[in-house]
Amino acid sequence: MPRGFFITFEGLDGSGKTTQLRLLHKWMAEQGHTVTTLRQPGGTKLGEGIRELIVSSKGEAAVGPIDSFTELALMFADRAQSIAEIIRPALDRGEIVLCDRYTDSSEAYQGGGRGLGSETILGLHRLLCGNLQPDLTVLLLPDFNASLARARRRDGDESRFEQEHNDFFQRVWDAYKVIAARESGRVVLIEGNASIDEVHATIVEEVSTRLFS
Amino acid sequence: MPRGFFITFEGLDGSGKTTQLRLLHKWMAEQGHTVTTLRQPGGTKLGEGIRELIVSSKGEAAVGPIDSFTELALMFADRAQSIAEIIRPALDRGEIVLCDRYTDSSEAYQGGGRGLGSETILGLHRLLCGNLQPDLTVLLLPDFNASLARARRRDGDESRFEQEHNDFFQRVWDAYKVIAARESGRVVLIEGNASIDEVHATIVEEVSTRLFS
Ligand SMILES: Nc1ncnc2c1ncn2[C@@H]1O[C@H](COP(=O)(O)OP(=O)(O)O)[C@@H](O)[C@H]1O
Ligand SMILES: Nc1ncnc2c1ncn2[C@@H]1O[C@H](COP(=O)(O)OP(=O)(O)O)[C@@H](O)[C@H]1O
Ligand SMILES: [Mg+2]
Ligand SMILES: [Mg+2]
Repeated sequence: MPRGFFITFEGLDGSGKTTQLRLLHKWMAEQGHTVTTLRQPGGTKLGEGIRELIVSSKGEAAVGPIDSFTELALMFADRAQSIAEIIRPALDRGEIVLCDRYTDSSEAYQGGGRGLGSETILGLHRLLCGNLQPDLTVLLLPDFNASLARARRRDGDESRFEQEHNDFFQRVWDAYKVIAARESGRVVLIEGNASIDEVHATIVEEVSTRLFS
Repeated sequence: MPRGFFITFEGLDGSGKTTQLRLLHKWMAEQGHTVTTLRQPGGTKLGEGIRELIVSSKGEAAVGPIDSFTELALMFADRAQSIAEIIRPALDRGEIVLCDRYTDSSEAYQGGGRGLGSETILGLHRLLCGNLQPDLTVLLLPDFNASLARARRRDGDESRFEQEHNDFFQRVWDAYKVIAARESGRVVLIEGNASIDEVHATIVEEVSTRLFS
């Protein structure tokens, strides 16, 4: 049975994940690969339902706030379903899977940013996701302020960032750095302020090395 | 800070959980206690949403079947929310909480019946429920065939039971026995074919001993 290749894209909002995922998708398709892309949360019909549930519960004043462990469980429900419905079948068919955010995001945002701890996230990943690890993770950590400014410009929504505060993003950033150090075999860390094309060239080089050698 | 008392009711369908929960509720209220009751799944608004999500996904032919780990994650999302919204606040107010099914059901049905294993269930309970344990668990295991016949009569739905098969219920039953042996300090196991009133008397005796001594 052929085993495909599973690549995830990680980093703060505005770090260039979606941009780089699309460029890599295009490049891989040109190389003749069959590519499946997805983002998390979402990707399955059930995942959309879960997302609606979270959004509608948050919107409704009558409902108590969603507990942070509830939210974590819902996030992993979505992930488990993506794995069962999309990721594992595609890998089993020998395809390339590109995923916009995966468990490293949970570890950085919920584990680090919200302070729930890495042990909780890694435990849930092991129990609910069969510990399925990417073959390669592209972690984009351009200059902190540049990336925040890019996300702000795109969203046109200052309030969200005022609310979350920069120190939250700093904790997420720090957690990503810890992951990169711990998982150095899997994670390719791309720092600094390279252009879109330069970052793409770096990713293509890494993928070529790992996939074709 | 006063700490209330948390009692759960466990057993197969038709074993008498709801009947005994109601009788105990009545008795405790007569003793002047403030009692909060809930059942799982459900109890919170978010929990109802989760239940609808599972049911609607199962009904829809277009959607792939819910993965068993997804279902487990959704079940624990519901439980985490019940704990945060209902159970912990009530216990913190010093109240009695009576819950129709709790994590032992997950361990017996998903862990034992569906074969996902106790380790997965206990791990999720630890990570997502802060490992909150009942002070007392009433486990009703009347004669296997009698209890199945009672559930069948009530539901008037033979097909569900043909589908699930008796050996599934046998695995659930066995898992409950393992839990009772392992957690003998917390679990009161009531076996045999005592009448409703006799079982109630046994429960009142146990509760009195533990609560007032
Ligand atoms: N290396 C880069 N240099 C400058 N701008 C970039 C770079 N990468 C992405 N951008 C721009 O930043 C914004 C956010 O990029 P996007 O790919 O949507 O990030 P993400 O998906 O990580 O939130 C977009 O306007 C994109 O064109
Ligand atoms: N000890 C008992 N002996 C005989 N019948 C019982 C006993 N306990 C409950 N029943 C009956 O069995 C049926 C199922 O009881 P119920 O409390 O709804 O079970 P559960 O909530 O565990 O599914 C009801 O009709 C109830 O009256
Ligand atoms: Mg994006
Ligand atoms: Mg019942």
